[in-house]
Amino acid sequence: MKLIRFGSTGKEKPGVQLDNGNRLDVSVFGEDYNEAFFETNGLERLKKWLETNQESCPKVSGEVRLGSPIGRPSKIICVGLNYAKHAEESGMALPTEPVLFFKATSAIVGPNDDVIIPKNSKKTDWEVELGVVIGKKASYVSEANALDYVAGYVLHNDYSEREFQLEKLGQWVKGKSCDTFAPLGPFMATKEEIKNPNNLNLWLKLNGEMLQNSNTSDFVFNIQEVISYISQFMTLLPGDVISTGTPSGVGLGFDPPRFLKAGDVVELGIEGLGSSKQHAKAYG
Amino acid sequence: MKLIRFGSTGKEKPGVQLDNGNRLDVSVFGEDYNEAFFETNGLERLKKWLETNQESCPKVSGEVRLGSPIGRPSKIICVGLNYAKHAEESGMALPTEPVLFFKATSAIVGPNDDVIIPKNSKKTDWEVELGVVIGKKASYVSEANALDYVAGYVLHNDYSEREFQLEKLGQWVKGKSCDTFAPLGPFMATKEEIKNPNNLNLWLKLNGEMLQNSNTSDFVFNIQEVISYISQFMTLLPGDVISTGTPSGVGLGFDPPRFLKAGDVVELGIEGLGSSKQHAKAYG
Repeated sequence: MKLIRFGSTGKEKPGVQLDNGNRLDVSVFGEDYNEAFFETNGLERLKKWLETNQESCPKVSGEVRLGSPIGRPSKIICVGLNYAKHAEESGMALPTEPVLFFKATSAIVGPNDDVIIPKNSKKTDWEVELGVVIGKKASYVSEANALDYVAGYVLHNDYSEREFQLEKLGQWVKGKSCDTFAPLGPFMATKEEIKNPNNLNLWLKLNGEMLQNSNTSDFVFNIQEVISYISQFMTLLPGDVISTGTPSGVGLGFDPPRFLKAGDVVELGIEGLGSSKQHAKAYG
Repeated sequence: MKLIRFGSTGKEKPGVQLDNGNRLDVSVFGEDYNEAFFETNGLERLKKWLETNQESCPKVSGEVRLGSPIGRPSKIICVGLNYAKHAEESGMALPTEPVLFFKATSAIVGPNDDVIIPKNSKKTDWEVELGVVIGKKASYVSEANALDYVAGYVLHNDYSEREFQLEKLGQWVKGKSCDTFAPLGPFMATKEEIKNPNNLNLWLKLNGEMLQNSNTSDFVFNIQEVISYISQFMTLLPGDVISTGTPSGVGLGFDPPRFLKAGDVVELGIEGLGSSKQHAKAYG
């Protein structure tokens, strides 16, 4: 099953995308795709509901804006330096355990919304990432059981302002949390749609030029390891998003570095999770 | 006005604490103290509502558990090293701009709930902090206008696992986000109750021994500066909490360091914001 949310910002309605690409409005089901939905076995309930109600669901026009396919989670936990070549291009050592940081959930936007280059930004950068959506509370989970806690997967562009992240004092969060820096979607694919999340092609193009092109099989720490590891330090709640790191090809890694300017177009995709496109705009 | 939330975990009801210490159940008002409440001028509406309904509100027993006085916010943004002596005891340089990090909102508990020492923790530490609750969306706010965006203030113990925070690879978030590591309350005092938030005594005792005892006038960056600074990097949402840093006297700063063990009792308070008390328990 592929979950979507559509409509204007902040007023998104729930929908599903069928295998033939058609999109259905499931507002009548009466629930948003949020913590309460995932916590109360919403995916199973929605699936059952669709078996008898699918025919009567209105179609969603292809013109309608897509929002994030899930409601705002309690947190987005990101894994840093989780592809060997990206650690290298960032000038950082290969991690011996997952590097974690948070991204403000206020940064979440729809998959094709504009990315706003923040005021005073000279170094806004891109990062195609596989997002894991948590399905049930996870605390001190073993690697063997980790995938039981997954609801599904989602495409994420972990936009990053490198000066804010790396040159300002302190922690990375300053460069990761700007508004529009977390486009999610186009859809959340439920777990059974993705045979092996640790073997998915992912790519990103800037103005049509392929800059990131890799596979999640290059993870330093795979999804089971990451979920288990994070759950040693905090409880993952239903609907929470883990963003699993980006492969090489970010702007910071070029010599000289390349960063976004107004008018640029960023397209990205992951096998089985669709693609998204953001137009870069200046703030204000 | 002093906002409280009371009742069992996850099922807290809204209330207010009167100047004589009595607590009233305001469930009939029909709103939780969350983003929607603050965003829609809830404080003003509640104040008006109380003028005509206060007499008919049931009293809350002194025995009832207090929860966090506000519903789960979109984020807790913490300021690191914001008192000169604490930076010194941590062996870190005095910051030239605010150091920021996030704390998972899943760590929030009531003011007198137990603090759970995480599995594998040897270095669980305390940090009394003044929390600022945001009242309306704040993006690119000036220092001159910053206090206009404040709803009120709250006592916070920013519990920190120092090995997870400082000895694990990467960012501080691992040591800041464990369950029960963010007791908030006993109440949120609305802005007009606190004449000068940059001049409040704050203290913390471990098993009756005074270990932290300072005043927010020792801030490296005052509240206006902190709000304005954070809002350059992300939008603060109504109900969000900024935790403004801790003064000297944390366990890490002692020689040898002192950390929590099961059975310890931590008490803390801030002038005008009441006090809280946590019993330390081992996980499991």
